[in-house]
Amino acid sequence: MKLYHYIHSDSSRRVRMYLAEKGIEVPGESVDISRGESHTPTFTVKNPLGQVPVLELDDGSYLAESIAICRYFEELHPQPLLFGRDPKERAEIEMWSRRVELNFAQPVKRLYRVRYHSGGALSAAAQDAIEAMEQSDLRATARFFDQTLAQRDFLAGADYSIADIMALCTYDMAVRMLRIPLEPDLDDLRRWYEAVSSRPSARA
Amino acid sequence: MKLYHYIHSDSSRRVRMYLAEKGIEVPGESVDISRGESHTPTFTVKNPLGQVPVLELDDGSYLAESIAICRYFEELHPQPLLFGRDPKERAEIEMWSRRVELNFAQPVKRLYRVRYHSGGALSAAAQDAIEAMEQSDLRATARFFDQTLAQRDFLAGADYSIADIMALCTYDMAVRMLRIPLEPDLDDLRRWYEAVSSRPSARA
Repeated sequence: MKLYHYIHSDSSRRVRMYLAEKGIEVPGESVDISRGESHTPTFTVKNPLGQVPVLELDDGSYLAESIAICRYFEELHPQPLLFGRDPKERAEIEMWSRRVELNFAQPVKRLYRVRYHSGGALSAAAQDAIEAMEQSDLRATARFFDQTLAQRDFLAGADYSIADIMALCTYDMAVRMLRIPLEPDLDDLRRWYEAVSSRPSARA
Repeated sequence: MKLYHYIHSDSSRRVRMYLAEKGIEVPGESVDISRGESHTPTFTVKNPLGQVPVLELDDGSYLAESIAICRYFEELHPQPLLFGRDPKERAEIEMWSRRVELNFAQPVKRLYRVRYHSGGALSAAAQDAIEAMEQSDLRATARFFDQTLAQRDFLAGADYSIADIMALCTYDMAVRMLRIPLEPDLDDLRRWYEAVSSRPSARA
């Protein structure tokens, strides 16, 4: 197996963090998105969407999409469980992962795209309007997560899960890379952030 | 158990179609989004995000997010399998489901929101710019799916799966409800659309 990934890709980081939490070692190969390496003909054979991460399997086939890759490893190496231990817990972790993906990660990805990759297709006013809309969505989700984390240690329940990995990668992209300030009163979200950031996997 | 859903919600339709394919009957209760019923205090106890579908479990807890609900039923009633039969197939169906969600369903949901629910926050020019960007993303994905469907009967492989359910719900929302014309040469996508639309579950 081989993992194609990029150091500054938050989707790649999800997989690296997941593998670190599980203690799984997979040979990696860097694909420098910033130099267009994910859109070369050799790479788009692996993933026609030109995105990392991609996992090359031993049978020569390719698996794209960060969470699909993590789920695959979860079946091969179940312990420690990061997608839940029974049907109800697995469904709840899926619910929280989707909330992170759709209401937290997606606004940040669109902000990034509109700021750096709109290719001049948007006027400054349109860009500002989208920026305001996405920031508003992001802040609403941050507040929802803060309220949730007032009642428990991790996003999907008492245990650390894939939902926390996804949320941490997005939090860092939003706050550290895109410099979007979150509101100062989100104490429970910050307490969670300190806890998940201090795990060794966060350095992945 | 009870399923809270709405007839015109494409996320609700995913669950209804899934249940129809599995032959599972679940008592339902309509939540009329258009009349604000998903944002009442009684409903936001069930799902703080004010979205349908929501599944009420027998222990009184609630499960939101269409695909989390379907996954829960998949564990209780595995046959016929709609999330795959082995680790690799399950990972591939997850990959395709995510491609549908992020690159096909999300642009359509944003188009809907910008057209009907931007609350006057966007200028006409900003609205046009977003509309053009989302339509362009949607068309690119439709073409990618068309190329994929030239090589096999269903999106994620030889068998019908949850990825097809998700894609059909989005296709109908885009083409039939929002009247976004897809390009005329997508013959394989249309062949797939005719096939999945003619299954009894499509009436759900």
